Amino acid sequence: MKLQVTQENLTKALSTVARVATNRGTLPVLANVLIKTTDNRLSLSATNLDLAITQYVGSKIGEGGEITVPARLLQDFVGTLPSGVIDIKLDGYKLHIKSGSYNSTINGISAEDFPVMPAIEEKNSWIIPNKQCKETLQQVVVAASGDEARPVLTGVYIHNYEGNVYIVATDSYRLAEKKLSSKGNDGVSLLVPANAMSDLLRIVSDGDADVEVFHDDQQVLFKVGDVELVTRLIDGNYPDYRKLIPESFTSTARINKQEFTNLTKIASLFARESAGSIVVSVDEGDGEVQVRSVASQLGENTSKATAKVTGDGSITLNSRYLLDVLSVLRGAEVEFCFNGKLEPSLIRDPSDKDYKHVIMPLKS
Amino acid sequence: MKLQVTQENLTKALSTVARVATNRGTLPVLANVLIKTTDNRLSLSATNLDLAITQYVGSKIGEGGEITVPARLLQDFVGTLPSGVIDIKLDGYKLHIKSGSYNSTINGISAEDFPVMPAIEEKNSWIIPNKQCKETLQQVVVAASGDEARPVLTGVYIHNYEGNVYIVATDSYRLAEKKLSSKGNDGVSLLVPANAMSDLLRIVSDGDADVEVFHDDQQVLFKVGDVELVTRLIDGNYPDYRKLIPESFTSTARINKQEFTNLTKIASLFARESAGSIVVSVDEGDGEVQVRSVASQLGENTSKATAKVTGDGSITLNSRYLLDVLSVLRGAEVEFCFNGKLEPSLIRDPSDKDYKHVIMPLKS
Repeated sequence: MKLQVTQENLTKALSTVARVATNRGTLPVLANVLIKTTDNRLSLSATNLDLAITQYVGSKIGEGGEITVPARLLQDFVGTLPSGVIDIKLDGYKLHIKSGSYNSTINGISAEDFPVMPAIEEKNSWIIPNKQCKETLQQVVVAASGDEARPVLTGVYIHNYEGNVYIVATDSYRLAEKKLSSKGNDGVSLLVPANAMSDLLRIVSDGDADVEVFHDDQQVLFKVGDVELVTRLIDGNYPDYRKLIPESFTSTARINKQEFTNLTKIASLFARESAGSIVVSVDEGDGEVQVRSVASQLGENTSKATAKVTGDGSITLNSRYLLDVLSVLRGAEVEFCFNGKLEPSLIRDPSDKDYKHVIMPLKS
Repeated sequence: MKLQVTQENLTKALSTVARVATNRGTLPVLANVLIKTTDNRLSLSATNLDLAITQYVGSKIGEGGEITVPARLLQDFVGTLPSGVIDIKLDGYKLHIKSGSYNSTINGISAEDFPVMPAIEEKNSWIIPNKQCKETLQQVVVAASGDEARPVLTGVYIHNYEGNVYIVATDSYRLAEKKLSSKGNDGVSLLVPANAMSDLLRIVSDGDADVEVFHDDQQVLFKVGDVELVTRLIDGNYPDYRKLIPESFTSTARINKQEFTNLTKIASLFARESAGSIVVSVDEGDGEVQVRSVASQLGENTSKATAKVTGDGSITLNSRYLLDVLSVLRGAEVEFCFNGKLEPSLIRDPSDKDYKHVIMPLKS
């Protein structure tokens, strides 16, 4: 292998793929990035066995080849080099890298030891527009579970329903659902690890390319410009979540999002001892939303803001869940709706009927 | 206690003092900040028993009093409040804080339980100008030891010598010395904990007030505008460090600081397995400085830059120590001087004769 590539392009590609490489596994090669030429293109890949990211990079290839080298070292090293052309040459398992008066040799591991994800047949793809994908992932992934005891809930569920694609996540305490304008394929039903979706979000956020989705029974491939992310799907049946989303409410309040965020943030400071419990009350007569922390050893807090309220009532919630959804809603106002103390509450952006976020109440 | 204070002033004061408060101690009151009115002034203080910081704040005092409340809660809470006037009222041990429609009560601990540092007689003070203090602390504190096994080396030594004040720190692997233009008092000899000096650096960096120094045998007080920092002195005799600073050299190189930093940074990436060891070589004939990492499992690196060199030679150093001093030198060029592989090296700014930084060589 012998090639030239700019420091800028190499740095960008490494920042996309290197985070997947890990030193924690038992296979040393998983800490490495695969550098490979294919048909006059240079690609960089990293994998953790569940997921692989590959970025293609513009370069001037003199001689083809492939090798793997430690991802973190290469990333730190290339990131510190001055901008401009870098000469790369492979000699056995030694990768020589030269830029101006900087001369380095990195010891590699054979590319044959690098685990490659099975190929996906690239047909029947569908497209999610960049902006919509970014917004959807921000709004949905937050609700996925981190608890490996129920693997299904650590996934984000992408599926067709009545002619639309829906993307959903729930950790059983809260649930986020977004309806996409994309049609998808008939009967699509993918359970994608939430971690992979977070990686996809970073990739999508890094440019304005749309996302092309390919899948088979085992894996899904997202193509975003020059970047490809492949991940294994989670096995299992997603819960029948639709019946959990309430549709009518005895109490609703329409309130400025920033004010509601401030009320919740301040109450949450006093709720550290009570696992984040806060009480949200709405009062139709006063036209007010009140957020109150439960009195504790530290002290207590009550704050109010004006709102358009229908129906009185109060509900106890985990303040962190409320802050999470408030941080991903886009409009200036939010609608907070519930049915007494015992049933799930719903938070939505009045100008976006496609996004629904449900939070289960806490006992109080 | 009953008073009014602006959110901006209170936030600023808390950001200065609250970091000293700690939850880790055995005394719960050490996690608190003391809020106190004295002669129509409001003060906020925190202490960890070794060190105390007090900031005075402009406020409208209706009724005097004092209380302590959890520092972190108060800081987070006040920081989240909207800007404007805050009403504070003490009722028993409950501190009521009101701002617009935000109403909170924080449970406090009696001010009588708050440990107060012994007073220092405020006479015989001397002044260190703001800019000089900032620069000196940045350049010196970095060389102090973090190893409590030799308490003397965890201090910064401030003393008079031949009519000038010198500030010095060493961890026995490197040594930094700065000569101040301030005269100080006759025979001043203070061994101040480096941690306290880091706190002083933050306070000094936060404005442009000069530093007034008061001291007795046990403690030193630094007054910076509205802020006071008192710290206990370290007991012990500082080593006779002057004989460690070399004065003549067989090899010297004058090199662009940024280039030397880049060479060192890149070599250090390859030196992770060898505890940061790098080899710096200078060549008078070629007019070059070469920085080389010792070959390791990862690979190796050699980089060069042009320099004004006198005398050939090479020396093995800890790259972290070299990067530390390069990051606190101010000029565009640095002078790197040494006497072969076994003796201490010296790094200095050619335009600043008052700062000397010595690094001991590693065996190679």
